[in-house]
Amino acid sequence: MNLKYAVIGAGALGGYYGGRLANAGCDVHFLLHSDFEYVKQNGLTVDSVNGNFELSQVNAYCNASDMPPCDVVLVCLKTTSNHLLPQLIRPVLKENSIVILIQNGLGIEDDLLSDMPGLKIAGGLAFICSSKVGPGHIRHLDYGRLILASHNLDDDNILKQVCSDFENAAVPCQFSDDLKASRWQKLVWNIAYNGLTVVLNTTTDAVMNYPVSRQIAHDLMREVVCGAQACGVDLKNDFADKMLAMTDKMKPYAPSMKLDFDFKRPLEIDAIYSQPVKQAAAKGYRMCKVELLEQQLRFIDRMNGN
Amino acid sequence: MNLKYAVIGAGALGGYYGGRLANAGCDVHFLLHSDFEYVKQNGLTVDSVNGNFELSQVNAYCNASDMPPCDVVLVCLKTTSNHLLPQLIRPVLKENSIVILIQNGLGIEDDLLSDMPGLKIAGGLAFICSSKVGPGHIRHLDYGRLILASHNLDDDNILKQVCSDFENAAVPCQFSDDLKASRWQKLVWNIAYNGLTVVLNTTTDAVMNYPVSRQIAHDLMREVVCGAQACGVDLKNDFADKMLAMTDKMKPYAPSMKLDFDFKRPLEIDAIYSQPVKQAAAKGYRMCKVELLEQQLRFIDRMNGN
Repeated sequence: MNLKYAVIGAGALGGYYGGRLANAGCDVHFLLHSDFEYVKQNGLTVDSVNGNFELSQVNAYCNASDMPPCDVVLVCLKTTSNHLLPQLIRPVLKENSIVILIQNGLGIEDDLLSDMPGLKIAGGLAFICSSKVGPGHIRHLDYGRLILASHNLDDDNILKQVCSDFENAAVPCQFSDDLKASRWQKLVWNIAYNGLTVVLNTTTDAVMNYPVSRQIAHDLMREVVCGAQACGVDLKNDFADKMLAMTDKMKPYAPSMKLDFDFKRPLEIDAIYSQPVKQAAAKGYRMCKVELLEQQLRFIDRMNGN
Repeated sequence: MNLKYAVIGAGALGGYYGGRLANAGCDVHFLLHSDFEYVKQNGLTVDSVNGNFELSQVNAYCNASDMPPCDVVLVCLKTTSNHLLPQLIRPVLKENSIVILIQNGLGIEDDLLSDMPGLKIAGGLAFICSSKVGPGHIRHLDYGRLILASHNLDDDNILKQVCSDFENAAVPCQFSDDLKASRWQKLVWNIAYNGLTVVLNTTTDAVMNYPVSRQIAHDLMREVVCGAQACGVDLKNDFADKMLAMTDKMKPYAPSMKLDFDFKRPLEIDAIYSQPVKQAAAKGYRMCKVELLEQQLRFIDRMNGN
């Protein structure tokens, strides 16, 4: 069976991953907002370290109600738009559809489930440096791996087929059987570097360049590791060291929250900071420095007009 | 006996407090750096909420070795210049001279004592909004109270006379018998508002305007209160609430560290942050959010060229 895909949002993530699937011949339908007219006319351009490609014909929609029912709904929006999900998703659902939230943070599957009881949900984690550089124009700079895991699926068959579709589309894709662990694991890096580059108004390489900012990043990541452990996730104590070493090898990089800040878009504070702080605290561990970072981000976001 | 005063540094503090003493007829000798030529020629101008005054004739020096021996040395430099103190102070000392460090932070008396064993030292705490607005030109915006306390004086006689000289010079001045307690008490406000206004690039009124930044200020002040208590200082638990209420009544204000940041001067991180964090930790209390703020300030200071 060939799966029919809906891609909600065609920015840095949706444009890249949805574009890869379409480029490999999958049946992909994009819901766009600001770029709808442009993409409808001109298609999608992806400049990628793994090879550029263009899609001259794109199934582009500006209303979810115009879209066909799909087997798989890839949610590629910022979590700050998640309150819109029910109205965007509902029109494209059919029996046995699954929704995959390719987003950062915690608690987002449960939030959606409480809005749409019975919905079949999975989570996706994107390890990628990419950004939208113009209308219908995505630049993929580095990495690209996806991890997919079930939240409440009856079985993993469709999800495994999605994995295989991605692999066939030149996207390395792993299936995980522990979404919570995968989400916490990714948060270790995200909590440290997203917030720090915003509050210190800098980039990852500057953070890595000075002993004091390396120490801050390490302290924050250690707290998240302890928070994850308190929540029952089996993360090793040296995971923060490994992330530090990995970041040393990365190219200078402005994380997505730094880009959101620079473009005065709302910051994903709830999913990436508040939920983890809350969940760890509920298990008796206080991520104290993370909490201060969260508070500072809220102030900065407010000053930024959000 | 009339005391002879040396004032080391004639900025926002030295210019105001030294100027007040001179204006009241005390024998005051100013050691100046960048403003020496100007003040030698034109004297000192103080615009004060308590009444403006001008000193057309000022005993101004650019070398400590040209100064007469003095009974009282008022150190009114930023703590970031304290490594210079031995060479600046030594020439003006005579038998029984006392040195009063009118500075913020902890550990500064002990540091000086280890450089100059046997020196008689007191501490001074300035509760004042003032700034240098031009060469030899001080603007005093609000408050102005001084607290003086002995660090290792044999007796308090000279210090009490200094208090009385200040009172006669229209400077409310209290004598305290617990320098450590006074220093910690002042740190509660300083640690919260100095660092926050720098890291969040804002002013006290904006911090007070939003629930999240009020909460940050309160959290930081609570940590300092607990740190002080761990160090044996009898601070009440509701002291942070009192400081919050006091700050609500203040005019919009950029604390001294924010001005240092804006003018790219080095920040007083050691005395105001590192020492308190270290002293509380040595007594078993970790001021965790204060520690993150300290680290962030070090990074920002470095990026500012210091």
